Amino acid sequence: MTETPRSPVQHNGIRHVDTRTASQTGMRRQNLAVVLGTVAAHAELSRADVAGHTGLTRAAVSSLVDELIAAELVREGPMTSSGRAGRPGRTLALNDSGPAGFGLEIGVGHLGACVVDLRGEVRVWRRVERANAHRDPANVLAALADLAAAARSEAELLGLRPQSPMLSVPGLPGPGMLTHAPNLGWHDVPIATLWPGPDTPTLENEANLGALAELWAAHAPTNFLHVSAEAGIGAALIIDGRLYRGSRGYAGELGHMPVHPNGPRCTCGSRGCLELYANQEAVLHAAGLPEPTATDPVTALTDHIRAEHPGALDAIERAGDALGIALAGAIGLFDPAAVILGGAYAELGPWLLPRIRSQLETRLTVRPFDPETVTASPLGRRGPILGAALHTIQRILRNPASLG
Amino acid sequence: MTETPRSPVQHNGIRHVDTRTASQTGMRRQNLAVVLGTVAAHAELSRADVAGHTGLTRAAVSSLVDELIAAELVREGPMTSSGRAGRPGRTLALNDSGPAGFGLEIGVGHLGACVVDLRGEVRVWRRVERANAHRDPANVLAALADLAAAARSEAELLGLRPQSPMLSVPGLPGPGMLTHAPNLGWHDVPIATLWPGPDTPTLENEANLGALAELWAAHAPTNFLHVSAEAGIGAALIIDGRLYRGSRGYAGELGHMPVHPNGPRCTCGSRGCLELYANQEAVLHAAGLPEPTATDPVTALTDHIRAEHPGALDAIERAGDALGIALAGAIGLFDPAAVILGGAYAELGPWLLPRIRSQLETRLTVRPFDPETVTASPLGRRGPILGAALHTIQRILRNPASLG
Repeated sequence: MTETPRSPVQHNGIRHVDTRTASQTGMRRQNLAVVLGTVAAHAELSRADVAGHTGLTRAAVSSLVDELIAAELVREGPMTSSGRAGRPGRTLALNDSGPAGFGLEIGVGHLGACVVDLRGEVRVWRRVERANAHRDPANVLAALADLAAAARSEAELLGLRPQSPMLSVPGLPGPGMLTHAPNLGWHDVPIATLWPGPDTPTLENEANLGALAELWAAHAPTNFLHVSAEAGIGAALIIDGRLYRGSRGYAGELGHMPVHPNGPRCTCGSRGCLELYANQEAVLHAAGLPEPTATDPVTALTDHIRAEHPGALDAIERAGDALGIALAGAIGLFDPAAVILGGAYAELGPWLLPRIRSQLETRLTVRPFDPETVTASPLGRRGPILGAALHTIQRILRNPASLG
Repeated sequence: MTETPRSPVQHNGIRHVDTRTASQTGMRRQNLAVVLGTVAAHAELSRADVAGHTGLTRAAVSSLVDELIAAELVREGPMTSSGRAGRPGRTLALNDSGPAGFGLEIGVGHLGACVVDLRGEVRVWRRVERANAHRDPANVLAALADLAAAARSEAELLGLRPQSPMLSVPGLPGPGMLTHAPNLGWHDVPIATLWPGPDTPTLENEANLGALAELWAAHAPTNFLHVSAEAGIGAALIIDGRLYRGSRGYAGELGHMPVHPNGPRCTCGSRGCLELYANQEAVLHAAGLPEPTATDPVTALTDHIRAEHPGALDAIERAGDALGIALAGAIGLFDPAAVILGGAYAELGPWLLPRIRSQLETRLTVRPFDPETVTASPLGRRGPILGAALHTIQRILRNPASLG
């Protein structure tokens, strides 16, 4: 499974490698991924079936499968007859007690930990409601590290081997650093330095992870715009099945898109930003709900809407209109195949979607867009932490040799 | 230079090719491009210099250079001493009288034809002012075909071999078809069928070609947003050095981004679209200038602004503010490394840029953006037709074997 690193020789700016060796190493790595992907995509496959699906020889498949079994990525069942004449064999499956993806999450009002197995199934799920905004980061990280250790122990009891965790954060991450998380009130927090323990997580923005979770766990198309809300509003663009980060890693800012440019002043210094009409604080305030609410604020809001509290209905419709105006601009520019509402917006979909769609119908006429392609995510508020945990699984499936 | 097409064998959805042959064919094709690119990037190179630059053997370089000379892509000068001991040789250069790029253009108020040589130098340039809006497409295409034939003859007298033309259109092209060109008043015009002659052009949107011209001829970065104006407003996104087309080819619609969502009614049915404040008609109208103007409308406008005509100054500032609001949203979403104003906006840059930059400075504070990275294109209104002509040159430089 290991591979000797080879240094390409730099010569006048043109890269030269021993292409024969490179192509053989690359070929085996690729074939490992092809075999693993074939096992992942089908139930009850034998080695002979894998050879049939991939066009690889049975000898090559056997050698690759042995390598995947040794790495605990694939397991082999007992000898069975498949019912097809002359093709008895052991069935292959992704190992559900091998390497696992490990996601952690810091929200404004909670901490989370999640372990998924190679099949993408959630096996451990822990969530603690806890006010983190404006708290000492070292204190928050200590609580999260405890939660992570408990989740790891639980996973290990299930025979899983959680890999290095990825941490979903409501802000902009730099290397080992949470640069800017306005809703936590944190700036330049050195997460890697403050982390109390050996399992230092990699950081990623929650909106980005929410979008990737749609791609990996919810059958989203390969070009879409994902818009989510927790305390703030986050957006992420998936282009050709990959997260688009922009030239400086700042892509996906939708919350401060000007919706009513001469509107009220925003905390950012601009006027009439989307967040003034559609973030949690704005909607709760417009709905006449106190903040902090007694229950979870999204639940409090949906309860009020269901009770047809006029303030709550007006507030959610105003938010839907503002989202529709912002999305009309975003869709015109980006031409996504779908727009997916995630996070709290997914739960508010029944009331947001009609207003959003109506705005899009009126505003997007030159290059037509079907308003029904705006939908609520089936993952909802679980998206970001699922994305964090699935990130590792995707890396392993794409390149089994990357497993340490 | 020709290559026998090989059909990959499809087997259970996995593609199998004779990888050895494929990689050798691919390698030679790639090396042809590397040698051609090396010749393009340096002046006064000998075959030995090319070998030094690329790390290829002198024998391989000679064989590749011979192939490029036979295809008329490279020419070899007389035997010279390079001044460096022991390295006399013939110098190599891109052939400035070989295959050439051929761009055509239909604008609302003009037709154009342009031929560029392999070095990207403009060698033939023809432009005819002519009102095309709401005219019979067959009639307009007949005039364009005459212009194209004259440009081709002129190029051939210079020893150039213009390749199949690419036609820049102010609208959305489909295959052989101009689907929607609102400012021409054309819908579903079958250009390929109506074209009177053998040299049927390929269609491409003018905003897309303007953006590509910035990339190829004006040293733009590899991620940028290009915004241009002729009669309408066009935008195009370049991501990682490639044009981003969106999921249905509709990406880059900026003209109907809502700027003041409760503003006046737009012809598209929406309200407060950018075009209502910043397209040619809106600016001329706000400036109190009659349309059609006696001279070119952009020249008429800049004359009025220079004369400090208050209506004209107000109109251009209002357009700059609207552009700044729309760009604040677009930059937040895409995080481009630059924003380039092309077409008529480039000529209006001195008056538009201060207002645009001021809007961006106020509105983009969470994820900082340097307003000075918004600049006016050095290509201006020549962008789209240059992009059309350079398209062929880029294809040849990337894959010399693609030359027919």
